[in-house]
Formats: sequence, C-alpha cells, structure tokens
Amino acid sequence: MFFQIVEILGTFAFAISGVLVALEKRMDVFGVLIVAFVTSVGGGTLRDVLIGFTPVTWMVNMIYVYAILGATIFAIIFRKRLDFLRTSLFLFDTIGIGLYTVVGIEKGLAIGLHPIICISLGTITACFGGVIRDILCNEIPVIFRKEVYATACILGGLTYFLLRKFPIDYNFVFVIAGSVVIAVRLIAVKFKISLPSLYKHEMKN
Amino acid sequence: MFFQIVEILGTFAFAISGVLVALEKRMDVFGVLIVAFVTSVGGGTLRDVLIGFTPVTWMVNMIYVYAILGATIFAIIFRKRLDFLRTSLFLFDTIGIGLYTVVGIEKGLAIGLHPIICISLGTITACFGGVIRDILCNEIPVIFRKEVYATACILGGLTYFLLRKFPIDYNFVFVIAGSVVIAVRLIAVKFKISLPSLYKHEMKN
Amino acid sequence: MFFQIVEILGTFAFAISGVLVALEKRMDVFGVLIVAFVTSVGGGTLRDVLIGFTPVTWMVNMIYVYAILGATIFAIIFRKRLDFLRTSLFLFDTIGIGLYTVVGIEKGLAIGLHPIICISLGTITACFGGVIRDILCNEIPVIFRKEVYATACILGGLTYFLLRKFPIDYNFVFVIAGSVVIAVRLIAVKFKISLPSLYKHEMKN
Repeated sequence: MFFQIVEILGTFAFAISGVLVALEKRMDVFGVLIVAFVTSVGGGTLRDVLIGFTPVTWMVNMIYVYAILGATIFAIIFRKRLDFLRTSLFLFDTIGIGLYTVVGIEKGLAIGLHPIICISLGTITACFGGVIRDILCNEIPVIFRKEVYATACILGGLTYFLLRKFPIDYNFVFVIAGSVVIAVRLIAVKFKISLPSLYKHEMKN
Repeated sequence: MFFQIVEILGTFAFAISGVLVALEKRMDVFGVLIVAFVTSVGGGTLRDVLIGFTPVTWMVNMIYVYAILGATIFAIIFRKRLDFLRTSLFLFDTIGIGLYTVVGIEKGLAIGLHPIICISLGTITACFGGVIRDILCNEIPVIFRKEVYATACILGGLTYFLLRKFPIDYNFVFVIAGSVVIAVRLIAVKFKISLPSLYKHEMKN
Repeated sequence: MFFQIVEILGTFAFAISGVLVALEKRMDVFGVLIVAFVTSVGGGTLRDVLIGFTPVTWMVNMIYVYAILGATIFAIIFRKRLDFLRTSLFLFDTIGIGLYTVVGIEKGLAIGLHPIICISLGTITACFGGVIRDILCNEIPVIFRKEVYATACILGGLTYFLLRKFPIDYNFVFVIAGSVVIAVRLIAVKFKISLPSLYKHEMKN
C-alpha cells in the first residue's frame, strides 16, 4: 500500500517533468501527453521488453495510465504556476527513482539474472524514461551529461546486493537500498556534484 | 481480401512518405530503404514488441517486405515526379492510418487488454512509424507538433468501443471506426485544423 | 572457441567506437559507458527483441558485459593514444561486423524465418548498435549516409544463402559469408567507395 502510493507519486512527478520539457519544445496537447507518458513508463517498458515480460506493465495495470493522464491535465492547467511546486516535484521524482531502481532490480532477480544485470535493469527502469524523453525532444539525453542520476541508482543497487549477504529482513533491504538512491541524488544536487566530463578534462590538459 | 489490399496500399504509401523524408536528408540508398521500412512497419513492430507478439508481424508475413521494397524502388525511380501522385499518396496514407488503427485495437482486444490500452495500441500502430522515422532523421516527431494524426486515431478508437456496446455487425464496427479516423484527418487537413501548441498560447498571454 | 574470441574482439572494438563518439559529445563517465554498451550490444538486442528471444543475449551471457566494461575503462585511460590503435580497432570492428552478420542470420534460420528476413536480422545485428549510438548522440545515423556497412552485410547474407544451396560444410559457409562482409567493407574503405546519395545526384541534374 505504502509502496503503491510512492509509485503513483513517482509516476506523477515523472509525467510532469515530461510535460514541462514538451511544453518548452512547443508541442501540441498530443505531443505533451506522449512525452509525459514516455517519461513516466519508458524505463519500465524498456526493462519489460528486454526481459520478455509482456504485455508490458502499464498495459495490464491501469493505475499508471490514470496517474499520467491526471498529471498531464494537472500540469497543463497549472503550467504557469508549477514553480511553486518545484521542490515537491523534485522530491517525488527523486523518491520515484529510488523506488523504480529497487523494483527493477527485483524484476531481474525474480528471473534469476546476474546481480550486475539486475542493477542495470534497476538503472534502466529509473533512468531510461528520461533518456527516451530527451530523444523524442531531439536532445542528447541530459543524464549522459550532467545529472548524477544513474550513479545514484548504481550505488543503491550495490547497497541492495551488499545487504542481501546479511540476514536482514527483506523489506528493510528494499527500503535502505531505495533510500541510498534518494540520499545520493539529494546530496549531489545540494552540493552540485556531477561526474566529470572526460572531454572537458581533456581540453584543459 | 479487401482489407489486405487496403493494407498493402497503406504500407506502400507509408513507405513512400519515408523515402521522401530520407531523400531530403540526403541519405544513400540503404538509408532510404531503412527509413521507408521503419515508416511502414515501425508502428506495428513497436505494438508487437510491447504486447509480446513475436517474431513481429513483418517477419512472418512477407507481403510487407515486398510492398516496401516495391514502394522504395518506385519512389526512387519516380522521385522527381511524385508531386503528381501527392493526392493519391495522401489518400492511401490516410486510409492506411484508419486501417492500422483498427488492426491495432483488435490486437489488444484479442489478448484482453483494457479499451484505453487498445486505443493506445491502435494509435501506436498508426502513428509511431512516423515517429521513429523522424527520430532517425534527427527531427522532433512532426505528429507531436502539428498534424491532427493521433487525434484522428483516438477518435476512431472511441467510436470503435462506443459502437461495440450496440448489437452491430462486427465488420460494420471495423469499417465505421476506420472511416472516422479517415474522415477526421481529411477534414482537419482540408480546414487546416490542428491542436493548439500550449507553448505558443502561453507566449501570447 | 575461435568464434568466441572473435566475438569478444568485435564487442571490444564496437565498445571503443562508442566511447570515442561519446567523448566527442562531452558526455560524463556514465554516458560514455552507456553509449559503449549500446554500440556493442544494441544491434543484437534489437534482433532479440524483434524475434522474442528474451531475456536478451547480453543479460544471460556475462561475457559481453565484461568485454564492454573492459573496453570502456581501456578506452577512457588511453583516450589520447587511441590513434596508434586505429588500424587494429578498424580491423576488429570489421571482423565483428562479419561475425555478427552471420550470427544474426543463423538466429533467424533457427526459428524458420524467410531468407530475406534472416539477412535483415544479420544486418540489424551488425549495424543497429551504431544506429542507436548515433541517435543517442543526436546525429543522423552515419550508416544511412556514407558508410558501405549495411551493403557489406547484405552481400555477405546473400553469399550465405547462395552457398547453402550447395553441399558445402556448414562451418565453411559460415566463414565464407562472414569473410565476404569483411572483404567488401575493407575494399570499400580502401577505395573510398560509397553508395550514392540520391539527393545530391538530384541536385546535379
């Protein structure tokens, strides 16, 4: 129940981030809706397709569709005032990433994949909605350039597999690993930490 | 038999629209062929992958491959004179969209998906070939910005599910829903109706 | 054993080609890794998804992940000196294309697909990693414009099905078809042969 609410909040926040990017690109209502949709469920969809879990999740659980439709309508109506919500949205988005990462890892574990692959699946679930959003908007994906987004997912994933080596309650592992993702991202954004661009580094030499 | 012919005409028209875009981007013969292919079968392929219907349709029914190869050769040879055919191509293309929409809806129904998801599948089948074409050509997908393309599909899909509530012959529902898609698009193009760009609207305020 | 080594060399060379493109786009470490990954296994992944062979190959055989991680670390460390290796890398890359083409063809044959579809699968396996790399880097895929890359794969594929009509040892067919791919590409690059851009041709008239 708690996780379900978190997931809906995450889906909602992801969808709004899609709406904002699409509005900047001067898309029409349909384009905005599609970009909101893809940003929200694109990562999970790619994960499901890669592991053969079809029909993909959002096709069989309508909660995603309703959350995204709601978020899109909400974001279009309040598009001039979303700045007031920026902090809440950032928080939902970050919580969503934490949850999506662990959900992705567990989908991989459930079919017996290697830990490295499970962490990849978690990272894909959390990050590739944004990647597909940026491709549809004709941009180089932002997470390839400056966000410590994937790094947070990978660290959370490593925590997950580390904790599983100990006799710890399963729900606890889930929450701690998700929290690591959230904490890393919050810290990185607060202190403006980002991965070095290898190219710029090159230029300086 | 009738539907099969319509489908081939639609595939043909989609492929030619791909060739024209690829030629403008100065692609070589191979690039032109791939873009033609993707424009024609990209939407149905994405639908098949999302619902786990694999190998995807064009791999097991060679008619698509032959139609696309034929269309590509035809379009390359007559590329300087295709303007004469613009009206016919537009018509085939529009008929193809109508048919593809209903075909996509029925693929979803066949595996028991929710009507909203079925309409999404119909829209994906009809529209996402063009979306992938535009991504390959490094453009923001045109249907996100100005074409009343997806809207026509969605209205046709709603018609489909509305009619199914009545005791109407199945083939009739199929034809009417497809015709709504076609009619909406023809009317929209004739009267230059398009969805508002929310951003431009914003600017004017 | 021999094929396994060739496959690892090909994966390695593809990954390095991804790293080089990503560095030029000023991506951070994570972006570089993802682009390396996609360049290496993107084609095979698309093939697996299209034929429903899931979880996709790199998720169940860790050798790819290790080869790509190794190649990425190697390429980042030696990024200023990779010019010395350019010839070796080009050779590995070309050998990889030859091998990937035949592997893709055989995956299609194994599930009874039509020769044209099998050749498409071989070409997708060999070429679409580069296509996805270019899309992620916001470029029109290079193979649509100037490289005789896909043409080599198609010619190799035709050779494969031609030879199968004769009572020739299976391994021999495999090697000859792969070698045709390699030879065509080497000759094309050496003599700077490329497919004509139909558009430029148009302009000259």
